[in-house]
Amino acid sequence: MTDATLHPDRLFPTDPTTRRLARDLFQTVETLPIVSPHGHTDPAWWGENPAFTNAADLFVIPDHYVVRMLVSQGVPFEALGIGAKADPRAVWRTFAAHYHLFAATPSRLWLDHAFQTVFGLTQRLTDATADTFYDTIGEALATPAFRPRALYDRFNIEVIATTDSALDDLAHHQTVQDSDWTGRVVPTYRPDACVDPAFEGFAANVDTLGALTGCDTTTWQGYLEAHRKRRAYFIAMGATATDHGHPTAATLDLPEAEATALFDRVTRGAASAQDAEAFRAQMLTEMARMSLDDGLVMQLHAGSSRNHSTQVHRAYGRDRGFDIPARTDWVGGLGPLLNAVGLDPRLTLILFTLDETTYARELAPLAGAYPCLKLGPPWWFHDSPEGMLRYRERVTETAGFANTAGFNDDTRALCSIPARHDMARRVDCTFLAQQVVTHRLSEEEAARLAIDLAGGLARKAYTL
Amino acid sequence: MTDATLHPDRLFPTDPTTRRLARDLFQTVETLPIVSPHGHTDPAWWGENPAFTNAADLFVIPDHYVVRMLVSQGVPFEALGIGAKADPRAVWRTFAAHYHLFAATPSRLWLDHAFQTVFGLTQRLTDATADTFYDTIGEALATPAFRPRALYDRFNIEVIATTDSALDDLAHHQTVQDSDWTGRVVPTYRPDACVDPAFEGFAANVDTLGALTGCDTTTWQGYLEAHRKRRAYFIAMGATATDHGHPTAATLDLPEAEATALFDRVTRGAASAQDAEAFRAQMLTEMARMSLDDGLVMQLHAGSSRNHSTQVHRAYGRDRGFDIPARTDWVGGLGPLLNAVGLDPRLTLILFTLDETTYARELAPLAGAYPCLKLGPPWWFHDSPEGMLRYRERVTETAGFANTAGFNDDTRALCSIPARHDMARRVDCTFLAQQVVTHRLSEEEAARLAIDLAGGLARKAYTL
Amino acid sequence: MTDATLHPDRLFPTDPTTRRLARDLFQTVETLPIVSPHGHTDPAWWGENPAFTNAADLFVIPDHYVVRMLVSQGVPFEALGIGAKADPRAVWRTFAAHYHLFAATPSRLWLDHAFQTVFGLTQRLTDATADTFYDTIGEALATPAFRPRALYDRFNIEVIATTDSALDDLAHHQTVQDSDWTGRVVPTYRPDACVDPAFEGFAANVDTLGALTGCDTTTWQGYLEAHRKRRAYFIAMGATATDHGHPTAATLDLPEAEATALFDRVTRGAASAQDAEAFRAQMLTEMARMSLDDGLVMQLHAGSSRNHSTQVHRAYGRDRGFDIPARTDWVGGLGPLLNAVGLDPRLTLILFTLDETTYARELAPLAGAYPCLKLGPPWWFHDSPEGMLRYRERVTETAGFANTAGFNDDTRALCSIPARHDMARRVDCTFLAQQVVTHRLSEEEAARLAIDLAGGLARKAYTL
Repeated sequence: MTDATLHPDRLFPTDPTTRRLARDLFQTVETLPIVSPHGHTDPAWWGENPAFTNAADLFVIPDHYVVRMLVSQGVPFEALGIGAKADPRAVWRTFAAHYHLFAATPSRLWLDHAFQTVFGLTQRLTDATADTFYDTIGEALATPAFRPRALYDRFNIEVIATTDSALDDLAHHQTVQDSDWTGRVVPTYRPDACVDPAFEGFAANVDTLGALTGCDTTTWQGYLEAHRKRRAYFIAMGATATDHGHPTAATLDLPEAEATALFDRVTRGAASAQDAEAFRAQMLTEMARMSLDDGLVMQLHAGSSRNHSTQVHRAYGRDRGFDIPARTDWVGGLGPLLNAVGLDPRLTLILFTLDETTYARELAPLAGAYPCLKLGPPWWFHDSPEGMLRYRERVTETAGFANTAGFNDDTRALCSIPARHDMARRVDCTFLAQQVVTHRLSEEEAARLAIDLAGGLARKAYTL
Repeated sequence: MTDATLHPDRLFPTDPTTRRLARDLFQTVETLPIVSPHGHTDPAWWGENPAFTNAADLFVIPDHYVVRMLVSQGVPFEALGIGAKADPRAVWRTFAAHYHLFAATPSRLWLDHAFQTVFGLTQRLTDATADTFYDTIGEALATPAFRPRALYDRFNIEVIATTDSALDDLAHHQTVQDSDWTGRVVPTYRPDACVDPAFEGFAANVDTLGALTGCDTTTWQGYLEAHRKRRAYFIAMGATATDHGHPTAATLDLPEAEATALFDRVTRGAASAQDAEAFRAQMLTEMARMSLDDGLVMQLHAGSSRNHSTQVHRAYGRDRGFDIPARTDWVGGLGPLLNAVGLDPRLTLILFTLDETTYARELAPLAGAYPCLKLGPPWWFHDSPEGMLRYRERVTETAGFANTAGFNDDTRALCSIPARHDMARRVDCTFLAQQVVTHRLSEEEAARLAIDLAGGLARKAYTL
Repeated sequence: MTDATLHPDRLFPTDPTTRRLARDLFQTVETLPIVSPHGHTDPAWWGENPAFTNAADLFVIPDHYVVRMLVSQGVPFEALGIGAKADPRAVWRTFAAHYHLFAATPSRLWLDHAFQTVFGLTQRLTDATADTFYDTIGEALATPAFRPRALYDRFNIEVIATTDSALDDLAHHQTVQDSDWTGRVVPTYRPDACVDPAFEGFAANVDTLGALTGCDTTTWQGYLEAHRKRRAYFIAMGATATDHGHPTAATLDLPEAEATALFDRVTRGAASAQDAEAFRAQMLTEMARMSLDDGLVMQLHAGSSRNHSTQVHRAYGRDRGFDIPARTDWVGGLGPLLNAVGLDPRLTLILFTLDETTYARELAPLAGAYPCLKLGPPWWFHDSPEGMLRYRERVTETAGFANTAGFNDDTRALCSIPARHDMARRVDCTFLAQQVVTHRLSEEEAARLAIDLAGGLARKAYTL
């Protein structure tokens, strides 16, 4: 059996002097509380605090990073319990037998971190250790110390945001607030389902929005008013932000009459693909205007080609690892929104891209000029050691640090949250140490910035 | 005279600890046999085993990397014996006088490696040493030890693939198989000349394809059957792969009737540029379907704007260094093919790009999901130390190592083959050593991966 | 108060051996004269040699890098004396209070360098030191030693080019030539105002061009002749180059009749956006043809989306930090020009991009083939330590060093000129040292190349 204990110097620079400095910086931020302003944990975990069932259900089946890698090497979805029933221990053994595929990927760093720090498992996961892992994890999960709220406390989380449909009743959030548990869980207003005409069930969703708010969502103004009311409800429940997942970064600022006509087309179900794109684009500007009034911080996650394989989508559903990044035009796309409200000091708009080529060419120049813009951390495929370093190297020289929004883990994998913040802090300390050793920053500045990057910038950007 | 002896630590990391580790890893793979699954050596070399004539004909005139650099600095094509007769010694002297231009390029590393390891020349090539080099090389070439088959044996090549027109009779391959030489030379099915309506002589090529196979290539089904038969011939001659050189990554999966109509248009010579693109796109999907049946591994080299200078093309012909990379849309382009056959475990499709921006954004996410996809090594302009490092840094975190196809040298420059594999092994060991020193891989894993990258992955991907 | 003395090893590599070598290389180029073949200093400085007024007018208000960063963090333009009158000391204090924003940006390295080496100020600029800085700088500026010509001499500038409208009378250049000051200031022919139909006042500018040259600029041929005459005037005044600032890299080579018709449309004011783009494209090829005859080196700065915020443009004017890079298609764009004159040894065309993705994919392959092409240094947002390293790493392996045009500072910030050349020399020595330590270059080669990169290549490319 191979020892896989995490090395305390992992991810630090290779040069000894720089490594020493990175290690010193990291020690000052390693145990700071976790600020998690964007992610996809299940509100039911926080509201109902259920026990997780087994290692396969916790680590394999819901993790699209893991599933896609196994599928890419010929493992059928069915062997992973997707699209067919499967014995969870068998799923786990399949995973373990292929765990070598994750060598040099961030997934392995996250998984190893969770195995070790959450479950005390320090051997390498292989065929030979699969059952030990499965049993150890399963036994732990049956105990109170491994329920979601206990993990929240143990992980030293200060605040965590969930991502919630605009139509969600936020009942689990209410349960948390009514409980005597002290964890802080806030919702995020994600209106895609009733903003994107291409979303499944869009028309029905708009009707529901009307019913929930008592607004006449058959008219453009009534529809906008419904969003305003719903946002107010989310704010009352603790939300500080909205989130928008769009295929492109297109925005529009149409004259009232055109916007009304567009709304009529998309809600009558007569929308072309172009209409749908235009409506999403217009709604980003409308949401930005609402933010001027109600103060919600706006997030835009743009550029994912969802469900690239229609076969996989049909047979196995969404979020199975077949969402592929697309080129994104931020400069042209954001123009209308920025010209409408981009200089208003009340707006914060945080941008997330899957197109790294835009870091230095588009995003840093935009965020380094417009007062409303902040850059979110490296997203999804780029939330990795090399991806994070590329981000800092391409963004910082033009936008500095203050125009970035700190780290967020963006995950539905609860046990990976500490691992992800640990990775981000290590890479940021690596970057800062390199700046110090090349005499671009002083040690004092680096120390202050390490703390900002570990949580301060996130708190500030999300008004948490 | 300047000593230019290759340093044993070349291309290794600068940090001493990491360098030591890279060196140790490299020692385990340095002398492994060369697996060369894709390249452009002349089959006649292997069939007829002729003597090469002189240094200029061997190293300068056919090497478009060399020619373009000299031309870019004002050397006329004619002075290099292209478009005019030139004394080979004079060509060589011109080359030598400009050899300083290659400082810090991979070409110099390849050339110096060949000069030293093949011909024992360890001085720097300059004006002053030009004649010594020319004479030494010329004398060697006249001896049996420098004929192609002897070099194959000396280079420790395990298998080499040539790239052959679908219309080629593979006579040289037959000669090799009939000989008592033990070298393994396999052909590759490259059907561009009768798949791409924009190819010179396309219509005649389709006719020839019909004649060679006894199929009626005036009909869509007959044309497809002809490819099937021709592929079977190549398989019988040892081929394990096809190769497709397309300007874009576009694929299509048209209904039968539309495909038939398209075929009729392009073979009647009435094809628009759009038709040509559509036909190439459709044929990639057809070839993928044939691979499901006959098992040939499919390669796609997409994104070269061939003959960017029409002047150069007209006056001096193809492959003169004026093929320039183009942006490539892999996500949109491959959609139809992948939706048709992308989940079939019988297919392997190896992708080569000239657009590095797609590594992290498109190719690694695609290859990290679809079971059929593998990523070929950095191609052409990116087959260089920095290019290889960028590839590993951008691809590995999402796709791992198993979704890559190992190295291939892709060269028509026989003497550079060992140099190119040497370079790839050094850079891969550098990358692996950095992963170990930053505690992302264990030493044991790195040692195993070094061997995979040096040949194992190529053997597996190409079923060699 | 924090000491902010520049460290002599700043920007050098972290590995000690590589650092030592970089330092040794840098010592051989540190004090070489500055060759500044492209920039935006005010010709009036050289002609009239006025005193600068105060620190805010010198360092803050005209520097769009500085202004945009302050604006991006909520400082109103008005507080910086833009769009409203402001007390310069108050502007300076605002700047000082936000100076921490520039941590890890090139602006801070430039500013600190100027504060220290020009004004002897070695503390960190903060709230607390703001007034000391303001007073010290103000007192110095009132003395003869801080007038432009004295700074030119002190900075060890060998030659500096200004960038001048084709309509400029070059009176300040005449004054310099008539004076007994020995500084060399040359103009550059920048005809955008009478080449770009979208330029404010284009029609009037074309009329002025006619009046200045005595040519009939209402006809296509007369208009071209006017450019020829105006270029001759610039040459007589010392110019060696033209410069073209275009939104894209599009070029055209239209037949005479089409070009004439296009000219008629754009000068009648009936031009569509497409016509304007076509005319700019055609004029690049015309200018290249003129260069064949008169020898002016051609520069193309393509890919800036000027005035992205129309609000900022309307309220505060041009050059306020809201020019954002755009994707640029060099391969398609330059085709027509290169096919017309790209192989002519009399042409030099220097390319500048804001789209780094084109370095390895398009620009290095083009410059590594066409004899006329040279690559300008990293431009604008990419004129930074990381930007320069990326440039060398992506360009050199394909294009070598000889196809690059050395460094130029491209600045209107006089006091930053030594800082910018210092930065470029440090980064180039870092790159060269890494090449030596990884045994890709010999030490002798690196030493020779360091000198080339520090000035030799610029002198040669610009025929200075």
